[in-house]
Amino acid sequence: MIGFIGLGQLGLPIASNLLERGHLLRIYNRTASKVDPLLTRGAERAERPIDAVTPGGIVVSLLWDDASVQSIVTSEGFLDRLGPGGVHLSMSSISPEGARRLAALHAAKGSVYLDAPVFGRPEAAAARKLWIPIAGDRAAQARVKPLLEAMGAQGVFDFGPDVGAATVVKLVGNFLIGAAARSLGEGVMLAESQGVDPHAIVHMLTTTLFPAPIYQSYGKMIADKTVPFGPGAILKKDLGNLHALASATGTSMPIADRLYEIFTRA
Amino acid sequence: MIGFIGLGQLGLPIASNLLERGHLLRIYNRTASKVDPLLTRGAERAERPIDAVTPGGIVVSLLWDDASVQSIVTSEGFLDRLGPGGVHLSMSSISPEGARRLAALHAAKGSVYLDAPVFGRPEAAAARKLWIPIAGDRAAQARVKPLLEAMGAQGVFDFGPDVGAATVVKLVGNFLIGAAARSLGEGVMLAESQGVDPHAIVHMLTTTLFPAPIYQSYGKMIADKTVPFGPGAILKKDLGNLHALASATGTSMPIADRLYEIFTRA
Repeated sequence: MIGFIGLGQLGLPIASNLLERGHLLRIYNRTASKVDPLLTRGAERAERPIDAVTPGGIVVSLLWDDASVQSIVTSEGFLDRLGPGGVHLSMSSISPEGARRLAALHAAKGSVYLDAPVFGRPEAAAARKLWIPIAGDRAAQARVKPLLEAMGAQGVFDFGPDVGAATVVKLVGNFLIGAAARSLGEGVMLAESQGVDPHAIVHMLTTTLFPAPIYQSYGKMIADKTVPFGPGAILKKDLGNLHALASATGTSMPIADRLYEIFTRA
Repeated sequence: MIGFIGLGQLGLPIASNLLERGHLLRIYNRTASKVDPLLTRGAERAERPIDAVTPGGIVVSLLWDDASVQSIVTSEGFLDRLGPGGVHLSMSSISPEGARRLAALHAAKGSVYLDAPVFGRPEAAAARKLWIPIAGDRAAQARVKPLLEAMGAQGVFDFGPDVGAATVVKLVGNFLIGAAARSLGEGVMLAESQGVDPHAIVHMLTTTLFPAPIYQSYGKMIADKTVPFGPGAILKKDLGNLHALASATGTSMPIADRLYEIFTRA
């Protein structure tokens, strides 16, 4: 029995994938009714976060931000029940500092916090095409590996034993997605103002210099004028965490700063 | 006999490719001695730009900037000799406005100016892996197509009959290369400051979200600390042309502006 917390846009398809592969889940979600459709497929409802936890077992969480993960972890009895041998596979996109703080809280109760934020839109989760960077205790990593594959990872990348590293990779990746999408948007807009067919320039660029899924999918949306610069809320949150980290470490990131300005102004 | 002007970093491998495919070239280069090694391979030396021109023929140029193309085109007798039926295949990376002005000068003398700036580093030229956007008179495009293939184009993309369109595509492409390389550099630097192995994050990002040659080649240089942010001079020139165009057309390009600041400050 695996504990599962958070049936959001990514959590729902990931939980479905696990059920489909025969895992039994005990699921907690703030809006309890979202669990209903899964009850006939091998899931049980947990009334409180602690009810999703098996002592010494594995609990997976997929939440929005630092505050939401923190509130689960510090909820009544959660860490005591997880206890020695327990593993919390935390897949939310939070701050590296927050991840390290959460890891320390787990360690104090004998359990392990794994840092494994997931790359992939909901469609990619449904199609089992997720990419997952992971960091934290290596034995715990080995224990959750089959679970990551069952939930739809097409690739898992080990960033070492220190929690926070995978979260840094996730923030950098989302920054690069934002920078790529925004730059492409600016470039296509300029080209269009000069009479260039937006589909033609997107076609050329994404089959030659930039044959990457991000450029291809955002390029199509930009040329079609459906979503100019990508999903705002997620990028805004992650760029905020990236910005705070760059400021705290004194890293000069002029492109990231500009992108952050654009997303916070918007 | 094809006229060929400019044996720079790209011009030299491109001229070599043409000779290798059996084309005869009459070559003008400001530093005349650079033609010497090609004389035994089917090339003749032109003492002046006009000497590279065959009336009604094709002349290819690969020069540095607007001023250098302008100085060739307005050199003594050049356009008069090219005359009706002549085609100038201009492959330099200049400004769209400059390209349109040059096209008008040619049209006034009955010849055709084709806008075909080339994407590819010198190694790509030698390996016949160039990408070429082209714009201008369609009949002239058809006439130069075999030449583009012989010089090493793995793909030619038609942006229509209006000169300037291919140059816009080239500027946008170079902007995106600069933005990608610079963003990746910032991201990897931040990750490294957090203890993440730079090769590991580059490996993950360039095999998952960004499996594109630009990210892969710059990623390797960034992780190896060989060239942090790409060849400065070309990007600086092209970003300057892009910036001028965005200003002239009132296109908001905050990322491109920031990149331009970075490259002009450096």
